[in-house]
Amino acid sequence: MRLVVTGAAGFIGSNLCDALLADGHDVLGIDNFSTGRRQFLEDAATRPRFELLELDLADLPDIASCLSGADVVIHLAANADVRFGWSAPRRDLEQNVLVTHALLEATRRASVARFIFSSTGSVYGDTATIPTPEDCPFPRQTSLYGASKLAAEAFIEAYAEGIGITTTVFRFVSNLGPRYTHGHVFDFVRSLRHDPTRLTILGDGSQRKSYLDVSDCVSAIVALLDRQGGHEVFNLGVDDYCDIASSAGWICARLGCDPRFDYTGGRQGWIGDNPFIYLDTSKIRATGWTPKFGIREAVERTVDFLADNVWLFDEDESPR
Amino acid sequence: MRLVVTGAAGFIGSNLCDALLADGHDVLGIDNFSTGRRQFLEDAATRPRFELLELDLADLPDIASCLSGADVVIHLAANADVRFGWSAPRRDLEQNVLVTHALLEATRRASVARFIFSSTGSVYGDTATIPTPEDCPFPRQTSLYGASKLAAEAFIEAYAEGIGITTTVFRFVSNLGPRYTHGHVFDFVRSLRHDPTRLTILGDGSQRKSYLDVSDCVSAIVALLDRQGGHEVFNLGVDDYCDIASSAGWICARLGCDPRFDYTGGRQGWIGDNPFIYLDTSKIRATGWTPKFGIREAVERTVDFLADNVWLFDEDESPR
Repeated sequence: MRLVVTGAAGFIGSNLCDALLADGHDVLGIDNFSTGRRQFLEDAATRPRFELLELDLADLPDIASCLSGADVVIHLAANADVRFGWSAPRRDLEQNVLVTHALLEATRRASVARFIFSSTGSVYGDTATIPTPEDCPFPRQTSLYGASKLAAEAFIEAYAEGIGITTTVFRFVSNLGPRYTHGHVFDFVRSLRHDPTRLTILGDGSQRKSYLDVSDCVSAIVALLDRQGGHEVFNLGVDDYCDIASSAGWICARLGCDPRFDYTGGRQGWIGDNPFIYLDTSKIRATGWTPKFGIREAVERTVDFLADNVWLFDEDESPR
Repeated sequence: MRLVVTGAAGFIGSNLCDALLADGHDVLGIDNFSTGRRQFLEDAATRPRFELLELDLADLPDIASCLSGADVVIHLAANADVRFGWSAPRRDLEQNVLVTHALLEATRRASVARFIFSSTGSVYGDTATIPTPEDCPFPRQTSLYGASKLAAEAFIEAYAEGIGITTTVFRFVSNLGPRYTHGHVFDFVRSLRHDPTRLTILGDGSQRKSYLDVSDCVSAIVALLDRQGGHEVFNLGVDDYCDIASSAGWICARLGCDPRFDYTGGRQGWIGDNPFIYLDTSKIRATGWTPKFGIREAVERTVDFLADNVWLFDEDESPR
């Protein structure tokens, strides 16, 4: 198959590209390197079946030419930061809604029959239905990020209905594992490198979240590449959750430090933070997919990756 | 109160402006007259408490100055045409999502505390839950119009959560009544004026829809102007529905003609047409609101209005 992967140099995108190339597919990766890293594509770049386009989808008047001949578009490029939406209230709209719409329109014009999208459990907002199934009661959005992903999903559904492409939307919990570059494990490890005696935790530490190892996320996308017809939505996560304080404890144990925890307080870490994310994944499990890693293992694999790649912290602190 | 009404010269907007002015409010109407009609604001224009801004919200780099001093923003301006989405696949995105986001951002910057939005029963897509309550299972979008309205709703929710404004979303069934200018009653009456012996009906005529008289729609918005705090969603419609063939029969009876009906066939009138729209309105009824007109009365009031305003047909057929 010939696949186009947007956000190819990102955390999930680069892992996905490696998996697709290992399976013998032709992959055209697209990335603007706003948050993607060239290092993550070092392996892919050595493969003859890999091609990289360095461009910003938002700047292209016509994306369709990039998609010519593709069997599948896998759209991962996004602003993936849920926490800082209010520092730039148009960012999620531009990067997640407008780009997705432009890519859908290009998919139509290039006659690509298959479109796969990375959405998020954040679209469930503050749902009271936990674990949350895909058909939970009509949710209310609590973040610009969740709103933008829901908006993108909505246009994907309209395109599936209107032009008959086969669409799959994955609603991820937060991913962890190799090439992870932002989120609470990153923040905690960076903080503990500076000062292993204390750790500030946003909220009261009771926020409960579910996590998925990126290799399990990738295996789900790969397993469902061949779906035919219609529009499907799948939650993607493990059948478990942890509270942030426990996660902090695992991180500290892995790093061999024993800091004092300082909590900023409140049930949310930030405006729009969902204090309990736990998705019902029975639908994706019914396809035969099952995750290999539990949450604690995923956290520990992330800590190990970050310990082996401290350049990420230096890069994160340098001006862009 | 000082209210800003976008889409003020439209079907619902002009009826709402008249009602707000009759109640003694100050009203700033905004319209770009892309589909709004100057004639609909003839009464309002004579009122000292009414001011009209003729501009396109999409063209304004900063809308906030227009909202200065307002107590409430009522955002009705939209592409309201669900049927022709695929003739211009970016139109719903631009007119319904981008404009709503820009207006929300202006609302934040102008510190307006209250935002009311006209959404649609189309956001329920092809839901199997009928009558459809506001908290029905997470729906799938079937039209670009529905997708754009859902996207707008999502950003409104995120703004309600993020900046603490009081937001109300009304999900309307199709409105009928005075100043109605597009939709099946308009199309049928126009067709019968040309040829009262035959009438072409899209689909097989079995599509079941619910309708609301615009005066009842306006009375609901006015009744809920004073809601304080949080985000609320209300369906707006009557506790009834009709099939299109029956509606066509009422129209013909009112016009005194007896045409042959020609059906184009199929359960949908067009791609994305929802063959059964019937909203559960118990939530809005619990606030004390109740509609005055049934569907047949609303259809007949529409026919009478169109018969008295045949200039609308002439204008609709002239190039814009």
